[in-house]
Amino acid sequence: MSAEKYQPLDRIFHPASIAIVGASTSTPETGWVGRLLKFGYKGNIFPINPKVNKINGLKAYPGICNVPYPIEYAILNVPARFTPQVMRDCAAKGVKFVHCYAAGFSETGTETGKRLEAEMVKIANEGGIRLLGPNCMGIYAPDSGMTFDEDFPKEKGRIAFVSQSGAEASRLVFLCQDINLHFSKVISYGNATDLDATDFLEYLAEDKDTNIVAIYLEGVNNGPRFLSAVRKCMAHKPLVILKAGLTENGAGAAISHTASMTGSRAVWEAFFKQTGAIPAQTMDEVADIIQGLARIKKPRGRRIAIIGRGGGIGVVATDICERAGLEVPPFSIETRQSLLQIIPEAGAGVRNPVETKIGTEGATEFYLKGLPIVDGDMETDAILIQMAIDVYGGHAPDLMQNVTESAYALCVAADSIKKPMAVVLFTGGHTDTIEAVTAARVILTEAGIAAFSGIEAAARAISKIYDYYRFLDIKM
Amino acid sequence: MSAEKYQPLDRIFHPASIAIVGASTSTPETGWVGRLLKFGYKGNIFPINPKVNKINGLKAYPGICNVPYPIEYAILNVPARFTPQVMRDCAAKGVKFVHCYAAGFSETGTETGKRLEAEMVKIANEGGIRLLGPNCMGIYAPDSGMTFDEDFPKEKGRIAFVSQSGAEASRLVFLCQDINLHFSKVISYGNATDLDATDFLEYLAEDKDTNIVAIYLEGVNNGPRFLSAVRKCMAHKPLVILKAGLTENGAGAAISHTASMTGSRAVWEAFFKQTGAIPAQTMDEVADIIQGLARIKKPRGRRIAIIGRGGGIGVVATDICERAGLEVPPFSIETRQSLLQIIPEAGAGVRNPVETKIGTEGATEFYLKGLPIVDGDMETDAILIQMAIDVYGGHAPDLMQNVTESAYALCVAADSIKKPMAVVLFTGGHTDTIEAVTAARVILTEAGIAAFSGIEAAARAISKIYDYYRFLDIKM
Repeated sequence: MSAEKYQPLDRIFHPASIAIVGASTSTPETGWVGRLLKFGYKGNIFPINPKVNKINGLKAYPGICNVPYPIEYAILNVPARFTPQVMRDCAAKGVKFVHCYAAGFSETGTETGKRLEAEMVKIANEGGIRLLGPNCMGIYAPDSGMTFDEDFPKEKGRIAFVSQSGAEASRLVFLCQDINLHFSKVISYGNATDLDATDFLEYLAEDKDTNIVAIYLEGVNNGPRFLSAVRKCMAHKPLVILKAGLTENGAGAAISHTASMTGSRAVWEAFFKQTGAIPAQTMDEVADIIQGLARIKKPRGRRIAIIGRGGGIGVVATDICERAGLEVPPFSIETRQSLLQIIPEAGAGVRNPVETKIGTEGATEFYLKGLPIVDGDMETDAILIQMAIDVYGGHAPDLMQNVTESAYALCVAADSIKKPMAVVLFTGGHTDTIEAVTAARVILTEAGIAAFSGIEAAARAISKIYDYYRFLDIKM
Repeated sequence: MSAEKYQPLDRIFHPASIAIVGASTSTPETGWVGRLLKFGYKGNIFPINPKVNKINGLKAYPGICNVPYPIEYAILNVPARFTPQVMRDCAAKGVKFVHCYAAGFSETGTETGKRLEAEMVKIANEGGIRLLGPNCMGIYAPDSGMTFDEDFPKEKGRIAFVSQSGAEASRLVFLCQDINLHFSKVISYGNATDLDATDFLEYLAEDKDTNIVAIYLEGVNNGPRFLSAVRKCMAHKPLVILKAGLTENGAGAAISHTASMTGSRAVWEAFFKQTGAIPAQTMDEVADIIQGLARIKKPRGRRIAIIGRGGGIGVVATDICERAGLEVPPFSIETRQSLLQIIPEAGAGVRNPVETKIGTEGATEFYLKGLPIVDGDMETDAILIQMAIDVYGGHAPDLMQNVTESAYALCVAADSIKKPMAVVLFTGGHTDTIEAVTAARVILTEAGIAAFSGIEAAARAISKIYDYYRFLDIKM
């Protein structure tokens, strides 16, 4: 991207005014106008609808050229066949950015759709308009109050997400909200006729409000430019990529979703190897890796210490960790001898995994006395705690208080732990545990401790984070 | 196992009386006596404790020989060092089954532990006692009211679980309760000094109350006998096996958990291939496979039709299915043409995956009109529905009502669907969706429809079920 195009992209995230072309009167609460109002967009909103005078209390205009104020950004919410005319109006009005929410273009595979899209792109190019979409949800930027879902959190964070899919963009926002992580910018860019992942990646690499970047990608328009943007981003901050359509029929589905050519699996495997970008296979995994990057210190190696309750659960956890590319070696003799001082011999192992005593009380005691011992062990590099919510004796009437106390104790203990550490909120499945799990997750994540919903998720995330840091050490 | 030993095993699941040796006075609510009383055990309970006269309102006896009634089953809740004497008392009293809950035996790796265990086994053999454990939770049999957790459901089901781990046994019971599946028998058998997985497998293969058997296994005592029991079981009903300790350090962890020799990975891979037993890697997967076996019809092939909302989510779902060994081919031309009659062209694909219209209303409409079309498609063998809970527009104030209606509509539609079918309760993550997801899961599972919590879980389960039926067709 040329320098003169790069600088202005920043404005797309906080335009002074937004026009909604095809502002809806039927759904005042959740239409684009109502959404921006409710979410607290800080600029001017101009509803465009020739049939009414007001929408959500704002004056409506029959056309974009009738608005007597400058318009920096326009959202197109009209049927595809009307978009060329609206684009001409936008060009005439001097609109800088158009977000085409409407679908019905090249992704349908029809000649009409392709022709309409080509026409829209031509008008944008000639009129100096940067085009986002079509067939996309647009921008969520809590800083300026832009959003495509009025239920998104208003809190600002330091994660950016660039997504070819609107639904996946929404999912990641909510998945991260659950673990107390928030976003600087989220972009759903659909068919990528003009602005695409590469443009945003180049911008986000240098964005001072963003520490971690994630991408959901079906295809790229310009391979070499994308590769160079990925390298630039990785030089500044970690990049997580969910490349969809890597299987044979996944590629077919991607074509009918965003008309993307997905590229071969071999090419993408080489791409990940060369760039060090962190690959993810599902949105849940994207959230897990982001949490790991945000909250787990750099591990020295792959050797994991596992702390938990339930011998069989420890064996399964060990298998899961080793399958994820980690190792669960026995603790040193010294560590085991120290652990035996606080763990009763009967029915609990100190080899690694180490079993805490029964219930949340047993867990709490271990966090305070045992965790420092595991931290000092020379045979392991990182600590994975399966926090017992209700396994054996946890279904007492005071479960919530016990779990809360245990979580706070873990926060206190974690303060002096030097090794990278992650927690799995492990439940035996009692029906009254959901609230306790939620409470523990809030306490831990507010203290900056990584809290995962399952051992598989945690193990995969730790393994990929280790790979990331190792790539940095060796290649960069 | 010899015939004379086999017949009596049935009694272990409904003994006429249970003695609790070392009945606890400190935890009357959750100790063994309170647990059996609360759960509704139908036989006589004899608390054994020399220090008190009554426990939970029942007369306590100083020793097992002081009980003036026959005792069929005894639970040993005393420190390991006292167990030889208690075993001698049990033999003298004519107790048929001893469940040694106590730990502190061979699993500790100590000489004392090994010696105590050997002594206990010797007394059992000489006294004609069948020994369960030590170091285990024992038996849950809702039919007779036996349990090791008073919170377990009282509903009887047709699944049996044999587990070397007590904690994993509990987890599976609760995981299955969440999806409305219940158990005939659950056995936690720990160190397997006498009764082990093989004994229970031989019994369950012919148990008329059991349709599906699952095992959590660390090691086996007698390979050839186990193999033959597995073959016998598979000839009667499906068998799911979580073999733990298959990685190098997983094997080490298993030794310190239940003193099990786990065997090499190559041996177990050959075992699964030869027997057709269904392998699982986590307890969640065990529950998923059980649900698939209980609720999904036999698929003719691996070709999956995916129905859902969100183009990108469909692409990711396709990748996940194909990685799980399924295929997601395009629908036939006829199917696509029929689908286009009910699906608008813009922004929604009909290739496969097929996208429903916005919100739960769009989903409901599709279940009634589109599902029969997909059912008739000749290019696919099974249907996977990602039920939209809140993706796009689902966060309306009446979300719960919409989702409930949609779930009922799906139940109605499912009645006339011939293909095997599974549902994924898919949420965009809005915080108010948990209740709606739960409501939908209850409605669907009560109607006998398989409802999974994620696409990965559903895809893996369908793939393994297909493998199971294929094994039956070819090998048996």
